[in-house]
Amino acid sequence: MKRIAILGSTGSIGVQTLDVVRRNPDLFRVEALAAGSRLDLLEGQVREFQPSVVSVADEAIARELKQRLADHSPSLWIGHSAEGLERAATLPIVSLVVGGLPGSAGLLPTFAAVNAGKDVALATKEVLVMAGSLFMETVRRKGVKLLPVDSEQSAIFQCLEGNQHAAIRRLILTASGGPFREMAPEEMAQVTVERTLEHPRWKMGPKVTVDSATLMNKGFEVIEARWLFDVSASRIEVVIHPQSICHSMVEFEDGSILAQLGATDMRIPISYALAYPERIDSGVAAIDFAHLGSLTFRKPDWDRFPLLRAAYSALDDETGASSIILNAADEVAVELFLSRRIGFMDIPRIVLDALNSVPPARVTNLEEIKQFHSDVVTRVQRNAVA
Amino acid sequence: MKRIAILGSTGSIGVQTLDVVRRNPDLFRVEALAAGSRLDLLEGQVREFQPSVVSVADEAIARELKQRLADHSPSLWIGHSAEGLERAATLPIVSLVVGGLPGSAGLLPTFAAVNAGKDVALATKEVLVMAGSLFMETVRRKGVKLLPVDSEQSAIFQCLEGNQHAAIRRLILTASGGPFREMAPEEMAQVTVERTLEHPRWKMGPKVTVDSATLMNKGFEVIEARWLFDVSASRIEVVIHPQSICHSMVEFEDGSILAQLGATDMRIPISYALAYPERIDSGVAAIDFAHLGSLTFRKPDWDRFPLLRAAYSALDDETGASSIILNAADEVAVELFLSRRIGFMDIPRIVLDALNSVPPARVTNLEEIKQFHSDVVTRVQRNAVA
Repeated sequence: MKRIAILGSTGSIGVQTLDVVRRNPDLFRVEALAAGSRLDLLEGQVREFQPSVVSVADEAIARELKQRLADHSPSLWIGHSAEGLERAATLPIVSLVVGGLPGSAGLLPTFAAVNAGKDVALATKEVLVMAGSLFMETVRRKGVKLLPVDSEQSAIFQCLEGNQHAAIRRLILTASGGPFREMAPEEMAQVTVERTLEHPRWKMGPKVTVDSATLMNKGFEVIEARWLFDVSASRIEVVIHPQSICHSMVEFEDGSILAQLGATDMRIPISYALAYPERIDSGVAAIDFAHLGSLTFRKPDWDRFPLLRAAYSALDDETGASSIILNAADEVAVELFLSRRIGFMDIPRIVLDALNSVPPARVTNLEEIKQFHSDVVTRVQRNAVA
Repeated sequence: MKRIAILGSTGSIGVQTLDVVRRNPDLFRVEALAAGSRLDLLEGQVREFQPSVVSVADEAIARELKQRLADHSPSLWIGHSAEGLERAATLPIVSLVVGGLPGSAGLLPTFAAVNAGKDVALATKEVLVMAGSLFMETVRRKGVKLLPVDSEQSAIFQCLEGNQHAAIRRLILTASGGPFREMAPEEMAQVTVERTLEHPRWKMGPKVTVDSATLMNKGFEVIEARWLFDVSASRIEVVIHPQSICHSMVEFEDGSILAQLGATDMRIPISYALAYPERIDSGVAAIDFAHLGSLTFRKPDWDRFPLLRAAYSALDDETGASSIILNAADEVAVELFLSRRIGFMDIPRIVLDALNSVPPARVTNLEEIKQFHSDVVTRVQRNAVA
């Protein structure tokens, strides 16, 4: 029985993690849930999974949750904000923490979990994008297992099992190419928020869906992979694979390539991370190869998707500061796009401009990383609005 | 430094094995070579790799080889026939034997190698097709490593590394479909030997090339996989994949599929078997995914390729006798086709007829297996000529 905490339990990763837990009641016990403000969903999760610790966004929401759960177990601890999150991330009885909080909010609690000696099933991209070097060093020092939940990183992780690091020739990250992969540049400048958020291949939040359309998301995955697998950017390749059946590949020194394929269902990487090194029922059906049709692969268009190249440029800066700029500027730009204040092609413009103009700060610890992130956010917001 | 013996050194597998050895002189030393009668090639191999034992088909060839190598090291032992083969397969200094002899000739020496405690890199299909259960039992009892050299079985083996047997849902064997995969049945009845042997995807001997065209080869691989990976036939699926880039796949209980891809170059599975669990320079170039085009998958046509279904039927017979009938009848039929005495579609007719009419014998040891094989060969030859 593995005892787990889920940070971000009402988000897409959290809900799907709980679905996997529901299918495997003998294997997992949920001890802690941390969420924001989606109380209806959270209340149901608490009643169903009976954690001993719950954390929410702020005091008012915590108070409302307490009222709703007045009839529930009196031993349930309900907290909020940074303190509540940290408690959920470091609960002594827990051995595995699922890091599914979106955005930079996931940074501190994920570090807290590792520092408390927990294995981490990591979905929050920002942890590796903003603090890759420091995070991997912490993971190594603490000797915990780091299990990627991202479908591409999980694919690479699965392909590397049973192989030696020295045998890696290349990592090949596949990208659906997003909804605009075939679109002319003029047309891309006109796309609406609605169009951007329509029918993504994966059920994801709006920020990641926009990042998928600009290929910034794939750029972040290049940065993640660089740190997660300790492979230089020059040996990480991105290929467009519109069908999203092959989730990524590893090429080895002997010319052999291992690929992981499957339905576009996050329960595969989630269940693998939860049960590693075993495999369990994820609820995901088999792929019927006889009716699959074609799998195609081609080069990404670097000109129409400059944010992919920007991620490689950011990795040239070994200090990691440029990756923080990239991430912070994109956070601001996507928010402006989602609130309809800028156009789609303004996203890369704002991000590239920040990458070129913001001087990288010295970032050697988590405090400096957070501070620099928030400095860049403020600066990019000011410039963008001006 | 791994000391190896190569059975079938002048065949396709042998030549490519020596190419891998040539690229990795610090890792391997060739101690024994066994071949048939291709003396020019064998003489060159002996001079280059300087084994201490060589075996050839018969006494006359051994005498000629001795004359040719009169100027060579006097410590070289040159033998022939079954005794020579056995010596090459069991040489005490050798730790890994590459079993690349074609046909049923590979049976005895491969068993001899395992019984002598050698790890085996296995290319000879007949070992598992004719004696799968007995061979796997011998491998387990002797505690040796069995490393498949067949590209499909190597693909599955690579995909299973780091995974548990209990996690396997299905093995998915890919098949190029052979040169006649799109051909109408009437036309198939007319194909010539030349047409059948033209441009195979893989550089192989004529027997395997014909077996690829009838899909008998894929059927044999189903039987091999059943024994090699201890998976029932009902969980082994064959899909047609004309591009031959994906060499096979494994689907796991969580819905995740691992696939092995690469150039159609046997040096990948050979180098993996030689260096397992490490990966070494195989001389095989990278695949350029950006220029790969489409990978397609579809169901095999069971009606036009009845020998594929015949392999599944043969596996219904748990004693293994039906697999021996299948293999022996195909051996006879392909030889008759290659010597232009029957047409292409007579191959499945003869094999299916044998499978339906020859009563399975009781086969519990290697002697009985060999005897039954040769009984079936005689019987099928007699019927076919009559």
